[in-house]
Amino acid sequence: MVVNKKCVSRLSRYRKALLRFKNLGFVKVFSDTLGDATGVTPAQVRKDFSLFGMVGKKRGGYEIDALLEKMQVILGKDQIHKVIVVGVGNIGRALIQYKPFEKDGISIAAGFDIDPVKINPKAQVPIYPMQDLKSYIRKKKIEIAILAVSEIAAQEACDLLVDAGITGILNFAPIRLQPLGDVEINTVNLQMELENLIYFTKILKHRK
Amino acid sequence: MVVNKKCVSRLSRYRKALLRFKNLGFVKVFSDTLGDATGVTPAQVRKDFSLFGMVGKKRGGYEIDALLEKMQVILGKDQIHKVIVVGVGNIGRALIQYKPFEKDGISIAAGFDIDPVKINPKAQVPIYPMQDLKSYIRKKKIEIAILAVSEIAAQEACDLLVDAGITGILNFAPIRLQPLGDVEINTVNLQMELENLIYFTKILKHRK
Repeated sequence: MVVNKKCVSRLSRYRKALLRFKNLGFVKVFSDTLGDATGVTPAQVRKDFSLFGMVGKKRGGYEIDALLEKMQVILGKDQIHKVIVVGVGNIGRALIQYKPFEKDGISIAAGFDIDPVKINPKAQVPIYPMQDLKSYIRKKKIEIAILAVSEIAAQEACDLLVDAGITGILNFAPIRLQPLGDVEINTVNLQMELENLIYFTKILKHRK
Repeated sequence: MVVNKKCVSRLSRYRKALLRFKNLGFVKVFSDTLGDATGVTPAQVRKDFSLFGMVGKKRGGYEIDALLEKMQVILGKDQIHKVIVVGVGNIGRALIQYKPFEKDGISIAAGFDIDPVKINPKAQVPIYPMQDLKSYIRKKKIEIAILAVSEIAAQEACDLLVDAGITGILNFAPIRLQPLGDVEINTVNLQMELENLIYFTKILKHRK
């Protein structure tokens, strides 16, 4: 199987879109629809799927569950995925204590912060100082980090994470991170989400 | 100006996409690109924008800043948008204390919870019992709510909010809400975001 970085990124986007379609109640999907939702040409969608032996029907499209199952195999079942949280402020602390992660096999292994007051290596989820970040990631072979530091500190923290070998970052800082190396970054911009809702509400009134 | 609900929803999506393009460093955008990113035909994009007197150049496209500015007028400058938080668990509490919202003119007016232990009407951001939710929303003319209750409680809370007149919900419960009335729902699915990163990392290893 020949898969390059760009293809991986597309597959990740397909998966996200497929989960959304499934949540909306769809059972099947056409390469056109999936292409539209992910910004990929339908031909490219079909090509990518054929790499994994996933073939659609011309008139019926692809079965969403079958596609997701094929993709799930790569994730591994009953496996626990260890994630760290960098920045133990309000959001960081909430994520460390976020119960629903466990159900999905996601375990928060440790938190990291620069503030000495927050350090607590004996807590259920231990909080370590930032200087221990690199050695911890390497020793424990951590691949995914949640970045919940302030906007100002985010880029530097991102550089540290990438340098230590992190390959996926879930970023809560409202900035576009510019990673130095190979890393996938998903940004959850809470302000933008809220602003969009406000915008929607205002424009709805505007028309009345 | 004739604007219907579907158009409003599209404009909200355009705005989100435009902010992303801007963050990526783009200055101009074509109706094709914006259409791709939002699942709308380029012709529809041009039609929607012309309603607001926004015209692009055939070869140059639309100026992103100019589009966003036109859209911002509707949001209103220097205005404070009051938002409530329903569910004062880990995530709810973190959002109530989330400083960056203030910068964007978003103010968390109050929190609501069913747990009597959490009620505190005298806190800086007062926490009220759920039975006060409807009267509070109506009295204070609140339009936007953050829903941070558990998966099981989310649908019932959503129904309450819509009944009280809420028009926009930022939902953190990992389910698809089925609203009874006219409301815009943005869901932030933290598990899905993390799972996607894990998936990305696994598949990246897989190819090596």
